[in-house]
Amino acid sequence: MRLRVDLLPHGNYPDVVLVIDVLRATTTAVTYLERGAEALLLTATPEVALSLRGEAPEGGLLLGGERGGLPIPGFDFGNSPVEAAAQNFTGRVVVMNTTNGTGAAHTAAQTGKHVLLAALTNAHAAARRARALATEEIAIVCAGTDLHVGLEDVYAAGVLAEYLLAMGEFSIDDGTRIALTVRRNAGNPIEALGSSGHGQHLVGLGLGDDVRYAAQVSTSTLVPVLGEAQEIPEALRFVAG
Amino acid sequence: MRLRVDLLPHGNYPDVVLVIDVLRATTTAVTYLERGAEALLLTATPEVALSLRGEAPEGGLLLGGERGGLPIPGFDFGNSPVEAAAQNFTGRVVVMNTTNGTGAAHTAAQTGKHVLLAALTNAHAAARRARALATEEIAIVCAGTDLHVGLEDVYAAGVLAEYLLAMGEFSIDDGTRIALTVRRNAGNPIEALGSSGHGQHLVGLGLGDDVRYAAQVSTSTLVPVLGEAQEIPEALRFVAG
Repeated sequence: MRLRVDLLPHGNYPDVVLVIDVLRATTTAVTYLERGAEALLLTATPEVALSLRGEAPEGGLLLGGERGGLPIPGFDFGNSPVEAAAQNFTGRVVVMNTTNGTGAAHTAAQTGKHVLLAALTNAHAAARRARALATEEIAIVCAGTDLHVGLEDVYAAGVLAEYLLAMGEFSIDDGTRIALTVRRNAGNPIEALGSSGHGQHLVGLGLGDDVRYAAQVSTSTLVPVLGEAQEIPEALRFVAG
Repeated sequence: MRLRVDLLPHGNYPDVVLVIDVLRATTTAVTYLERGAEALLLTATPEVALSLRGEAPEGGLLLGGERGGLPIPGFDFGNSPVEAAAQNFTGRVVVMNTTNGTGAAHTAAQTGKHVLLAALTNAHAAARRARALATEEIAIVCAGTDLHVGLEDVYAAGVLAEYLLAMGEFSIDDGTRIALTVRRNAGNPIEALGSSGHGQHLVGLGLGDDVRYAAQVSTSTLVPVLGEAQEIPEALRFVAG
């Protein structure tokens, strides 16, 4: 079994893909499911999200997302896990569009057999699920920020890699070696996320609570899994796996 | 002043770019200049290299390069720094084409004002030269291997970043934070290069001496610098800076 960490989305994933965007898309996605959401629809653009709502019955879909860390006009929620944790989404479908995380999920879905969303908050559960599904390769894909590598995603990839290496034998690549080195030497999760460029940006926007929320490790057992039947090609449907 | 490390070539470099392909293109480039070469021509493809020789006077150009670590048919040298160190290139022009390093140099040259080739062997000299030239940003660009990040290049980027941070004030990005963490925690240069996927590949090809050669730190003061007047658009001309 191969274990591969892509420090930025690269493509050509043959088997299981774990998509990471710790600050904040995948952390928020896990929280929506924790708070009862029935499904998540990840769209490639904000326009697709808005048009999906236009087609749905009144109040049928909620929209969550951000650009540059700030809420998108016309959306209900701002991609904040703290905000999501305070709401009840039971039976609701949330449409998500974010700067980096949703794009990475679409890249993963092009070829991946199984696409899961991973964060620090569901790291152990996501690793277990990936291990159970994989037959040849587990690829951990860091979303990064605006095409630049994000320390917070590489750190989380290292946490996932550590869990996976404890579950069985893997051949690893240099991306995995780098992620493990970062995980073991960049401090505790709060320090690592807080020292990242994107973490500092969010703190500057007054969103430090989201950074602290995202630094919790394995507090959730929910793993968003890409469903097999995709009704809308421009929107990836994830459900609790 | 900004310091930025791209773990793979990304583009949009406004100022000084240090291109790193430790195993082996930039290490070999430094060695050609050490052994007297007058200039290096980095071509985008092997075909351009062969056609340049066709147009040159008999014996006027030497060709060095590799694909997958092995010499290219029709070339004189195989991108080996150990092989280069045993030859005398005084007054000669060497045309180079390699799998990753020459492509990264071409990406850097698209926008960079000053493009330098850096390796562990010339790390201190390359950092000093970059610091002297830069007015707004120094970008350290890791060539990687076949679009995947290479531990050896990230390690060398960390060595360069340490030198630069000792020379003045910089704002740094997450790529720099990751490279510094790798440099400080992945062992000594021989251990880091030897544990990388590409280092292991070269050892398997019987090229372990090249890996050991490339792990020497700051043994050369020569820095290949992209010349200002480029006569042939498909071939970047580097001279000793």
